[in-house]
Amino acid sequence: MERRGFIKNAAVTALLGGSVAACDKAEQSTQEVSTSAPEPAPATGSETMEWKMVTTWPKNFPGLGTGANHLAKLIGEMSGGRLTVKVYGAGELVPAFEIFDAVSQGTAEMGHGAAYYWKGKSEAAQFFTAVPFGLTGQEMNSWLYHGNGMELWAEVYAPFGLVPTAAGNTGVQMGGWFNKEINSVADLEGLKMRIPGLGGEVLKRAGGTPVSLPGGEIFPSLQSGAIDATEWVGPYNDLAFGLYKAAKHYYYPGWHEPGSTMECFINRDAFRALPDDLQSIVTNASRVANQDMLAEYTARNNQALKSLVEEHRVDLRKFPNEVLAKLKAISDEVVAEAAAKDPLSRKVYESFVSFRDQAKAWHDISERAYMNARS
Amino acid sequence: MERRGFIKNAAVTALLGGSVAACDKAEQSTQEVSTSAPEPAPATGSETMEWKMVTTWPKNFPGLGTGANHLAKLIGEMSGGRLTVKVYGAGELVPAFEIFDAVSQGTAEMGHGAAYYWKGKSEAAQFFTAVPFGLTGQEMNSWLYHGNGMELWAEVYAPFGLVPTAAGNTGVQMGGWFNKEINSVADLEGLKMRIPGLGGEVLKRAGGTPVSLPGGEIFPSLQSGAIDATEWVGPYNDLAFGLYKAAKHYYYPGWHEPGSTMECFINRDAFRALPDDLQSIVTNASRVANQDMLAEYTARNNQALKSLVEEHRVDLRKFPNEVLAKLKAISDEVVAEAAAKDPLSRKVYESFVSFRDQAKAWHDISERAYMNARS
Repeated sequence: MERRGFIKNAAVTALLGGSVAACDKAEQSTQEVSTSAPEPAPATGSETMEWKMVTTWPKNFPGLGTGANHLAKLIGEMSGGRLTVKVYGAGELVPAFEIFDAVSQGTAEMGHGAAYYWKGKSEAAQFFTAVPFGLTGQEMNSWLYHGNGMELWAEVYAPFGLVPTAAGNTGVQMGGWFNKEINSVADLEGLKMRIPGLGGEVLKRAGGTPVSLPGGEIFPSLQSGAIDATEWVGPYNDLAFGLYKAAKHYYYPGWHEPGSTMECFINRDAFRALPDDLQSIVTNASRVANQDMLAEYTARNNQALKSLVEEHRVDLRKFPNEVLAKLKAISDEVVAEAAAKDPLSRKVYESFVSFRDQAKAWHDISERAYMNARS
Repeated sequence: MERRGFIKNAAVTALLGGSVAACDKAEQSTQEVSTSAPEPAPATGSETMEWKMVTTWPKNFPGLGTGANHLAKLIGEMSGGRLTVKVYGAGELVPAFEIFDAVSQGTAEMGHGAAYYWKGKSEAAQFFTAVPFGLTGQEMNSWLYHGNGMELWAEVYAPFGLVPTAAGNTGVQMGGWFNKEINSVADLEGLKMRIPGLGGEVLKRAGGTPVSLPGGEIFPSLQSGAIDATEWVGPYNDLAFGLYKAAKHYYYPGWHEPGSTMECFINRDAFRALPDDLQSIVTNASRVANQDMLAEYTARNNQALKSLVEEHRVDLRKFPNEVLAKLKAISDEVVAEAAAKDPLSRKVYESFVSFRDQAKAWHDISERAYMNARS
């Protein structure tokens, strides 16, 4: 998926009158602390605070925007209202792609998005969302929590005064919607497909033409033939967009985004000004939201796939093995090149690839072998 | 795996002098509330309480016992010490298989174990740990949190005055250690294998002889030839037991336990006596512990498998497809028969099987197809 265009589009139509909400007293005091005091004094248990969470998602966007809402709700509940979080959709307080700077500067205390949007800040950031032929959702969590991934992510965001957390996962996405059959690598030649980031770069090297399009323009572009193909997320979100009405073939698997992690990031000064229990609540609420989104996508994709196949007679197809093998070979090159751009990216890449190789070895004989046996 | 025997053994050697620790004032007051007041008054934010968590695991047992410790630590941290939880290993306060009754009766406020140990209380309980050819860890979480599974689990435990939570997952386990090759279903005839529960029943119908053995006796029994084969958990725990010294072949996948959920259960009166924020903290700390254990097993199994294969030259083998197909057919029968024993088991079975069929359909084209493409 790529949300950039969709979000830009949504930002235009979003409530522009939101502007900066009036801060309550406690929040102002936190802000003062975070900008003026070198060693912020932790708030005591009796204070109440309201934080702002800015997001890259249209307000209440299914799965992603509602995942941000869920995180905010958890923090309010677990803190007994001592810390409440108000969620802003893309463009309500700041535009989608300005949330990173906004939280870095303290305009809002929290942000919710996806790390690969911040590639311009640090090449290494994209490893924390999704890598073509990289880690699945379960493997991402294992790398992040028990494979040094979170520590590396913290290192990447530290220069920006941000503390990152993993706050959601879509699971393996779909390969996309096509109006022609993909029977060989040659069928990718000249294919005009909406596919962003590293995945788009891979398609380009395979002979295709990756296109960036606002989410709201995907359906008409596909219907008019302006593009030949598109990827978005998976059955749950794709069904809602009605993409089955504009393309014949629904290909799998989503080799380019095998377990996309959503993120939360917190202004470091604001985070450090919290007492220890609220710091723990914010961090662990993210972990709950992280797990819950994957559980939700797994359940909703089940239901949506049934509807797509049984009601809408979608033609489900697997990419031929030859095509997947070629895309994998190109992906390995593209990812290695991205890692070569700076020393921190190299460090993250080496950790990621080493973990992936071991995770693959273990999952080949566990998750994969089991699922093959079950079918 | 089966922990029954191991735990019994460990219980004998565990610190027997632990007995009931002195309760602090706040805890005593909670106990009084839970046994005498029909409508317990919620504790206020300023009180502190200490709860007892009894477990089926030897104290600090890797992955499982440490997972219980992690849950207790999270509750203490997020509550800022308002609610602290003291963890007791099997036999320290009550024997492993008496924790269900102990928490039901209020001797301890929390328990940590696995639902299939309580099959004697309710046949339906075993669906909440693992079912042969059932759900993977990711799918279990999806069923529990977004497929009505938690509501059903709550219904199963309600008559016992217990509130259940999912509090850990081992992921797909291994098929086990064998000293003879399994090349066909005929090789299971007369095979004496340590394998518990529904999986053991399946082996029996395939012509084998399932055996129950204390964990501590597995290694000598396998070495002496008293048993031909055994299963335990997976590389992380199996390496620690040294099973590779007593068997030649390490078979996969673990068809009988494809994503075993660990549990926490809470005395309902004690839970209801908590203020809302602490109820939320206890519930969500379980969710964090649930996710974290799966992330830990995924990472540690990676490392242990590497050690088993590279250092200890273990002969890794996949069960032949013909054998897996036969075990699957028998499993379907065994699970359906278990469900037929009472109306609540039937209700849980129907929810589980319906969710599994959809999850399988979705994961066939996402997780499974992706992992096959990656290899």
